[in-house]
Amino acid sequence: MPYVNIRITREGATKEQKEQLIKGTTQLLQDVLGKHPMTTVVVIDEVDVDNWGIGGESIMLFRQKYLKD
Amino acid sequence: MPYVNIRITREGATKEQKEQLIKGTTQLLQDVLGKHPMTTVVVIDEVDVDNWGIGGESIMLFRQKYLKD
Amino acid sequence: MPYVNIRITREGATKEQKEQLIKGTTQLLQDVLGKHPMTTVVVIDEVDVDNWGIGGESIMLFRQKYLKD
Amino acid sequence: MPYVNIRITREGATKEQKEQLIKGTTQLLQDVLGKHPMTTVVVIDEVDVDNWGIGGESIMLFRQKYLKD
Amino acid sequence: MPYVNIRITREGATKEQKEQLIKGTTQLLQDVLGKHPMTTVVVIDEVDVDNWGIGGESIMLFRQKYLKD
Amino acid sequence: MPYVNIRITREGATKEQKEQLIKGTTQLLQDVLGKHPMTTVVVIDEVDVDNWGIGGESIMLFRQKYLKD
Repeated sequence: MPYVNIRITREGATKEQKEQLIKGTTQLLQDVLGKHPMTTVVVIDEVDVDNWGIGGESIMLFRQKYLKD
Repeated sequence: MPYVNIRITREGATKEQKEQLIKGTTQLLQDVLGKHPMTTVVVIDEVDVDNWGIGGESIMLFRQKYLKD
Repeated sequence: MPYVNIRITREGATKEQKEQLIKGTTQLLQDVLGKHPMTTVVVIDEVDVDNWGIGGESIMLFRQKYLKD
Repeated sequence: MPYVNIRITREGATKEQKEQLIKGTTQLLQDVLGKHPMTTVVVIDEVDVDNWGIGGESIMLFRQKYLKD
Repeated sequence: MPYVNIRITREGATKEQKEQLIKGTTQLLQDVLGKHPMTTVVVIDEVDVDNWGIGGESIMLFRQKYLKD
Repeated sequence: MPYVNIRITREGATKEQKEQLIKGTTQLLQDVLGKHPMTTVVVIDEVDVDNWGIGGESIMLFRQKYLKD
């Protein structure tokens, strides 16, 4: 009966990738804790990059500053 | 001072239905725990069906497979 | 397939009250949106009063200040 | 390594305001608990006003009723 | 920069099992979306069985009723 | 009417520090978005270090490996 919430930035994850995340997470919970797939809920939230912050800045600014070098 | 988060798939819930969910949840918390309506927060999240998984698949695939029979 | 998270302060909610919250929430989602009880997940989180803030203060301080009058 | 989720109604918060929220929250966690900014995640969720309830009603109805007087 | 919240009932998950959940989830996000492990946060919440409801009842009652047959 | 959820590892945050987090977060939302303190809810979750993962490991293992050098 697990509930798994995967929060990622909205950067073009495809339907297939989301299916893989749902399948992989459900399989993991079955393998590790024996949780039944039919009662395992996985919800993916996609968040705008302006709304996600790390190091005191939105991801957009963070990447411009640290990842351009 | 309760905070209630209702997560459902985005499948056309109307304004009136959301009002009913907010009203009903607030009433329930008042009836059961005596919580004051004016400090009860209810937030409804609507999630794309591609982003909601059960049984290791997105709800769309799940329904096609199990509910068509 | 709804997931409902009810967050309340940890102030002695009994087993019976929690059953009522679970039952009432599930019934509400069935009545308003036709959601099937067998796929409706309700999770109750109980939070220490020191960890819950309103009006810029923990609930304990808030109540001492505003509700003693 | 904190994770902070700020949930507000979707009412036009600008990019700059979101940057301020991310910066301010990260600074607060560093000042109070010594948490390193580079491992502090802040996520802002903006919720439609129809989906946010207080006092048993959506915020729209609540404001019309209580804040017009 | 994903944040993954795994919510399970508190039923004796061991340290090793939690490590496996953290490792597996992080690996999955790297494999599917190329997310860097060093910025992938996984948080496991363990919830009392009285506080987790399905089918309108707490899991304890649910299991007694449906799984004893 | 904001709801802010601050998730940190359970590592001895004091009552006073929690009050500071609540006060600071509420002040920040008032300063940046003009949100009224009396309707700003702040909830702090403290999570066991075994239950918090980064870089594919629990924080405990992560620190032993990376922070001892």
